[in-house]
Amino acid sequence: MEEIKIFAPASVANVSCGFDVLGFCLDPVGDEMIIRKTASKGVKISKIEGQDLPYDVNKNVAGVAALALLNAHPCDHGFEIEIYKKIKAGSGIGSSAASAAGAVFGINALLGQPYTPHELIAFAMEGESAASGSPHADNVAPVLLGGITLVRSIHPLEVIQLSSPSELNAVILHPKIELKTIHAREILKKEVSMEKAIQQWGNLGAFIAALYTEDFELMSRSLNDVIVEPMRSLLIPEFDSLKKSAIEAGALGFGISGSGPSVFALTKGDQIAKSVANALKKTISPSGLNYDIHRSPINHQGIKVLSNQ
Amino acid sequence: MEEIKIFAPASVANVSCGFDVLGFCLDPVGDEMIIRKTASKGVKISKIEGQDLPYDVNKNVAGVAALALLNAHPCDHGFEIEIYKKIKAGSGIGSSAASAAGAVFGINALLGQPYTPHELIAFAMEGESAASGSPHADNVAPVLLGGITLVRSIHPLEVIQLSSPSELNAVILHPKIELKTIHAREILKKEVSMEKAIQQWGNLGAFIAALYTEDFELMSRSLNDVIVEPMRSLLIPEFDSLKKSAIEAGALGFGISGSGPSVFALTKGDQIAKSVANALKKTISPSGLNYDIHRSPINHQGIKVLSNQ
Repeated sequence: MEEIKIFAPASVANVSCGFDVLGFCLDPVGDEMIIRKTASKGVKISKIEGQDLPYDVNKNVAGVAALALLNAHPCDHGFEIEIYKKIKAGSGIGSSAASAAGAVFGINALLGQPYTPHELIAFAMEGESAASGSPHADNVAPVLLGGITLVRSIHPLEVIQLSSPSELNAVILHPKIELKTIHAREILKKEVSMEKAIQQWGNLGAFIAALYTEDFELMSRSLNDVIVEPMRSLLIPEFDSLKKSAIEAGALGFGISGSGPSVFALTKGDQIAKSVANALKKTISPSGLNYDIHRSPINHQGIKVLSNQ
Repeated sequence: MEEIKIFAPASVANVSCGFDVLGFCLDPVGDEMIIRKTASKGVKISKIEGQDLPYDVNKNVAGVAALALLNAHPCDHGFEIEIYKKIKAGSGIGSSAASAAGAVFGINALLGQPYTPHELIAFAMEGESAASGSPHADNVAPVLLGGITLVRSIHPLEVIQLSSPSELNAVILHPKIELKTIHAREILKKEVSMEKAIQQWGNLGAFIAALYTEDFELMSRSLNDVIVEPMRSLLIPEFDSLKKSAIEAGALGFGISGSGPSVFALTKGDQIAKSVANALKKTISPSGLNYDIHRSPINHQGIKVLSNQ
């Protein structure tokens, strides 16, 4: 195989009760990437469409991730990467994770799969780290593994693929305001009260139990974030009214996607997802804000190969 | 039914990564209680053997829990309670929870089951509250429901019965030193670092996933407590060497039971539980401390009816 064309999906991290540990993979929203072997060694970003991103491999998350993999697995040729960006940078649905995960997925395929998807997470994280200032696996993991994932530990890195009920659907609303991950992190406190931490891990534990038992009502009661949402939601216009309208339209839960500004709702089934999407549109329209809205079942596959040769 | 005799088992709360939310029920260790209808209204503690505990119903956890139930469900007769205490008060394996849960279980049975086991938790918690100074469900819940339980929320109260692999066994070592729950709580900080809270909920989430998938290795990696154990273990003699010997003997994990001083190990199967029990005995013996040691599979039933008439 000399060349591979892939679909690198968007993803939602944190998922209310799972700050820094939970993430799930989306379906119709994502970038396309072509990764191609080159005779010369090293990594080159040869094309970027749809977004103004650096071509310098040491500054581009796809480049950083690719170099991390090749550093661990040297080879006598190189790779060039074309990126057709559809996920907007800074939207909070894992734009950098898609690029980082896509790059290592593509190179791994062209190298004959020396690494498992689990092993690729560490390389993709290095790209993520370049984007956000700290290493995170909660977006790259669901992109590489598919479904819903839990980062048990960063040092050592361990990610678990959780059970993911087939009826789960997501609605993503991206209000087009700029909100950098690094700023959204700055608003967080370094300490949390023990009382709230206990509430959070009670909810996270219950949410995970509910995924395995397919208890949608329990999922709904568990999708609470008492730690991060109260602070970060202040940065997102109309957050409270959007949340109210999503829940009234039947969403199981509603929260901030990653570090925002995108927000997500989870629903049981695609019909409720449609109603929730309509309700969110109605609620945000009067504000005059530009926005994108997407509906998606949970993507259980993760990155998809579109073609190869 | 005029009288019921029950076995009210001991239990382990916290379970390393699940501070204030996880608990499991033990089997051979527990109290016996007889609850009997009386013509006169109210609740009377008519006998306590094996322990020096108050007969005043407003000061005895069984009495407080019984009164809470009868307050919600008035009736035209009363109850007397005999308590044959085998779980030592202050041992950290749910002595007060067994009494509180036993009382409400027995009275509920004599009243013709007006409440479900889930509903009884709230009444038993009132007894617990009298003992520890704050309302906790993490011991009474596994005693009333059996198995391994998760307290998702205290306000409103919601407890979930988790999947509990049949091979799971526990070893409990009770070093006979005095350590009151209320003092063990005082040593805790009111704030925790966000970094450690994230580690804790990553481990809790993974532990729960592992219960459903029966992944014992993942359970083992998840049974870490980075928040409470580092502080409370200082109060328990030989904690570090006991932990080391339990893990070396094959335990999946080892930690403080409730607020101590008892410690617990979880194992896959009863053969490893035997080895762990032997290793713990060898480690603690040179200290000259008095101790009790118990082995127990997880008790999936909770309270057992011994006889009724």
